[in-house]
Amino acid sequence: MEDYGRFLALLVSALLVGFLSVVFSLVWVFHYREGLSWDGSPREFNWHPVLIITGFVFIQGIAIIVYRLPWTWKCSKLLMKFIHAGLNTIAMILAIVSMVAVFEFHNAKNIPNMYSLHSWIGLTAVIFYSLQLFLGFAVFLLPFAPVPLRAALMPIHVYSGLTIFATVIATALMGITEKLIFSLKNPAYSASPPEATFVNCLGLLLVIFGALILWMASRSHWKRPPEENAKVLQPIGGTPEGTEAESTMADGSNADNSDLRINSEAARKQNLKLDEAGQRSTM
Amino acid sequence: MEDYGRFLALLVSALLVGFLSVVFSLVWVFHYREGLSWDGSPREFNWHPVLIITGFVFIQGIAIIVYRLPWTWKCSKLLMKFIHAGLNTIAMILAIVSMVAVFEFHNAKNIPNMYSLHSWIGLTAVIFYSLQLFLGFAVFLLPFAPVPLRAALMPIHVYSGLTIFATVIATALMGITEKLIFSLKNPAYSASPPEATFVNCLGLLLVIFGALILWMASRSHWKRPPEENAKVLQPIGGTPEGTEAESTMADGSNADNSDLRINSEAARKQNLKLDEAGQRSTM
Repeated sequence: MEDYGRFLALLVSALLVGFLSVVFSLVWVFHYREGLSWDGSPREFNWHPVLIITGFVFIQGIAIIVYRLPWTWKCSKLLMKFIHAGLNTIAMILAIVSMVAVFEFHNAKNIPNMYSLHSWIGLTAVIFYSLQLFLGFAVFLLPFAPVPLRAALMPIHVYSGLTIFATVIATALMGITEKLIFSLKNPAYSASPPEATFVNCLGLLLVIFGALILWMASRSHWKRPPEENAKVLQPIGGTPEGTEAESTMADGSNADNSDLRINSEAARKQNLKLDEAGQRSTM
Repeated sequence: MEDYGRFLALLVSALLVGFLSVVFSLVWVFHYREGLSWDGSPREFNWHPVLIITGFVFIQGIAIIVYRLPWTWKCSKLLMKFIHAGLNTIAMILAIVSMVAVFEFHNAKNIPNMYSLHSWIGLTAVIFYSLQLFLGFAVFLLPFAPVPLRAALMPIHVYSGLTIFATVIATALMGITEKLIFSLKNPAYSASPPEATFVNCLGLLLVIFGALILWMASRSHWKRPPEENAKVLQPIGGTPEGTEAESTMADGSNADNSDLRINSEAARKQNLKLDEAGQRSTM
């Protein structure tokens, strides 16, 4: 791997910043707020920031760059797809549970639901994320989608994944803003009490985490190398760069590089034979 | 150009959504708020959303994709760099004026400055944006930077540009959230008065605008083609894909494709000669 040291430094930084964000969210709810419970009280609401930051930010971020980890390149592509899909499924479940916590808290306190820009964009992000997960599963994990469909959808899958990730972080920043304004009364947010400064720092950590993940996911020279089988099956005259050009932006998932390369009908048929023989590890 | 029709449809959509965002910001301050003036009143504050959305979102977005417009490909690269830098300079000036409006309004009303996460991230974005503009000017517009330095900085320039753009939109969403909570009192934001719904829609427009710009900027097949001179000067064995691989993520600026390709010392010297002869149009 090119620049292995730099990759490792960025990975360690991302993990540290992400882990620190989760710790900050816990310190926020336990030290500055009332802690956690599931009883319709503000303690139930507190699950919302904790689960969003743990699942929808940290775990989603790791899911995006999981194909980049060089020590996974000896694992089969199928295993890596399962890990990618699995992490995203955990993130989605945590996001949904965290939304249930807010709805139950709102209902218990007679606070209207879904009135804020935070809630509009947040719900939209969860819906798109679920769609992305469902489509990714159907197209890239199940063995039924034809190769041209995979090739056509991969750039959209990569772009959507990164755009949803960025939108989730933006939504978290709006949520932090809302919560600090609503909950800090005496002294108010504008008086910069310790909680305000602490949670602002949490917001900065989320932005840094997002920036690190997007940088790592968008360096094409850190992509998982193509499978050996796919190299063999590459059509004559086809270059790796040529077919990869479509999925170059921030190819965090990199799920189907090798599939994309197999773009001739003959190679596809050959592939199907190899699939039957259990020799192909790209699915 | 590949997919010219699709590019045009996306461009028209982005322009429409961006223009509509500016119109929405004006309707917000003139119909729902007190209008505009420069007297320390809330009317001075109102310059803030209008100028941020006009300059820091809409104009910055156009500056990002200006190299992609196929009818500019017959213009010299130097002219396009001036337009890219010029639009970004206008955006920066509008962003700074819009911040002055907030500071003056806060000072007139004895509201503390720089306490919110919105202000922290917003000021950081303006500082990074100014640095990016200054470095971009020094490295890619002035003729002094050596080609290896340009090649090394181009992926960072592209990544920073897009990350700052996304951060600016996230900051605008936080600002909208703050303003609606602070200014809607009777009825409150949570009662969803018409202003709340209208400005939430403005927030959605900003997200859609950002998503459209990022999609257009990250399709590598919509990049400005390399200059003819640069093609001639390409070192033997070098492929366009090979050297472009470093700057593939969302290459909105695409400012120095041709420069990046000229990566041998011999080609560089040849280029300098062409520069003197006024034949090279990449600077």
